Amino acid sequence: MRADVTLADLPLRPELVGEEPYGAPQLDVPVCLNVNENPYPPSDAIRREMADAILAASARIDRYPDREASELRRRLAAYLGYGLTMTNVWAANGSNEVMTHVLGAFGGPGRRCLTFTPTYSMYPEYARNTHTEYVTAARHDDYTLDAGLVLSAIDTQRADVVLITTPNNPTGTSTPLDVIETVLEGTDAIVVVDEAYQEFSTTPDASALGLLPRFGNLIVSRTMSKAFALAGGRVGYLAAAPAIVDACRIVRLPYHLSAQTQAIAEVALAHAPAMLANVDLLRAARDELLVRLPELGYEVVPSDANFVLFGRFTDRHLAWQRLLDAGVLVRETGPAGYLRVSAGTPEEMAAFYAAVEQIGHP
Amino acid sequence: MRADVTLADLPLRPELVGEEPYGAPQLDVPVCLNVNENPYPPSDAIRREMADAILAASARIDRYPDREASELRRRLAAYLGYGLTMTNVWAANGSNEVMTHVLGAFGGPGRRCLTFTPTYSMYPEYARNTHTEYVTAARHDDYTLDAGLVLSAIDTQRADVVLITTPNNPTGTSTPLDVIETVLEGTDAIVVVDEAYQEFSTTPDASALGLLPRFGNLIVSRTMSKAFALAGGRVGYLAAAPAIVDACRIVRLPYHLSAQTQAIAEVALAHAPAMLANVDLLRAARDELLVRLPELGYEVVPSDANFVLFGRFTDRHLAWQRLLDAGVLVRETGPAGYLRVSAGTPEEMAAFYAAVEQIGHP
Repeated sequence: MRADVTLADLPLRPELVGEEPYGAPQLDVPVCLNVNENPYPPSDAIRREMADAILAASARIDRYPDREASELRRRLAAYLGYGLTMTNVWAANGSNEVMTHVLGAFGGPGRRCLTFTPTYSMYPEYARNTHTEYVTAARHDDYTLDAGLVLSAIDTQRADVVLITTPNNPTGTSTPLDVIETVLEGTDAIVVVDEAYQEFSTTPDASALGLLPRFGNLIVSRTMSKAFALAGGRVGYLAAAPAIVDACRIVRLPYHLSAQTQAIAEVALAHAPAMLANVDLLRAARDELLVRLPELGYEVVPSDANFVLFGRFTDRHLAWQRLLDAGVLVRETGPAGYLRVSAGTPEEMAAFYAAVEQIGHP
Repeated sequence: MRADVTLADLPLRPELVGEEPYGAPQLDVPVCLNVNENPYPPSDAIRREMADAILAASARIDRYPDREASELRRRLAAYLGYGLTMTNVWAANGSNEVMTHVLGAFGGPGRRCLTFTPTYSMYPEYARNTHTEYVTAARHDDYTLDAGLVLSAIDTQRADVVLITTPNNPTGTSTPLDVIETVLEGTDAIVVVDEAYQEFSTTPDASALGLLPRFGNLIVSRTMSKAFALAGGRVGYLAAAPAIVDACRIVRLPYHLSAQTQAIAEVALAHAPAMLANVDLLRAARDELLVRLPELGYEVVPSDANFVLFGRFTDRHLAWQRLLDAGVLVRETGPAGYLRVSAGTPEEMAAFYAAVEQIGHP
């Protein structure tokens, strides 16, 4: 085959033809409120400790890392509490890889993964990459879920893996714990409760982690990218019965977590209270968005996460572009007419409000 | 589902039932010659530079990393030479993930991946995880390949992706460049030349990289885990036509390379000559294995990599165990009756030879 091939010349899988690499635009903009990061970097003391950990780990970086990431998983279990141990915890390079392991073990060809839309735009990618059939059911008009809706969809769609996202992205909607409990009482499907934004909830302790002692088909997915302020570190994890973790261990490719990732994440976990210190500030910024945006004439969706959907715009792309022109990057995602803005620092919020006042209501 | 589930209670994919997590035993043994690492860690100066890079990168580790890993890919291209640029290079968390991307784009259900056995034991795992049919053809009795054998197997097996490993693991056998050239002239299948051990070859410059200007279906796979002495860093990469890289970009999940991995690998590449400084020593240790093991009464397979197959044992597991009891861990892999030993430091080699003299010829 000649060297100047284009994608069209290559035997790309048919379902990938015409696809673009997934991801929000990475633009060089003064105020980035588009990917729900925690905008508070670690303290200088923690950063120095991370550097020291790399100095130590690099002494044998010529050797493969601990394939089980035991110390990292121990610390994640200790952070979560609920009597969990390392055997209950699986970790990988971001929730992306955690979910790939889950769908690699329990999804795949001939199996179906069910989500409740509108929801996280990565889920179809996880399904696509694992050749799992992706099926959906619509949330109620206010984006909430109840057990009847979920169980009925599991049945109708013959779901093998069910994803309940709480707080949901991009709507910010939490699903009450008693709904999840009733769902688990009614199904033997694998139920993944994606709590990526749980620490931002007004009731962060109302976690599905508390249901693990009762349900072996429950997986609670978490990340260090959001509240933990470690998006650059790329560490996602789950808590579940040890047999679920064993299933992930079968499908993972060996040494998936590098020495440096294990070292950095272990330091962050040793300083969990400091890393999470600004969650309250971000919750307050979120709550202010929910008050001020309506004052500015926008609709908002009640949110329990660190972001808010606001609108409605007749031309949301134009609104997005005008905000970008004003130096503020938000995300063009979610239900028609809405944009999603992340809770940021006071300076970022001030810039956002100033920009919003300029753009009008396109 | 009750909480004390076992794997047997869970809806694990049928093909995974009974599987174990892949990987060589990670045992605490004085002399580890089992996973073909380069046993020379980076210098203290390079380690300090890695720590400094982490100090810098952690200043914004709350933000997602560069999704394109542009600087890392630029440096990898510069390291490879041959006029390659960032658009020719793709990188991921180890060759494991690189190959998962390749098979995600060009393999998958209904497609076939062909290898030439005996070869690297991870390849079936890549195929399994991507639901690609794994097909094989036997190498010649001396583990070599010629173009007729390869092209005939591509045709017979209707291969979509062909893996040619040179030097081959676990045999150490190189495939001459003119064989690869003739194969590429004869097929439009995706041809992956896995050069994980190329730097250890007696002819390291006889790389398939030189064929990239002529063949758009060629992928040359490399790793920083071996000659580069960065197994703990988990960085694999490939060089190919930009369209191949674009295909990988479609199937990768976003932000697959963490800020810390990009930072560490960039430092290592800035010091490529130093990181690779001991390749000559390891080549010499390999050559010594090929001489001394026959003197001790063992058969060896001629090797162009940093390891050697030796035997033959009637009971190779017993031989492996006796070496382990003597404090030396080798790998029980490859053709029946053989063990594989990695080239190590002079101290490791001395311990290995002493142990080998003790175990007899079980």
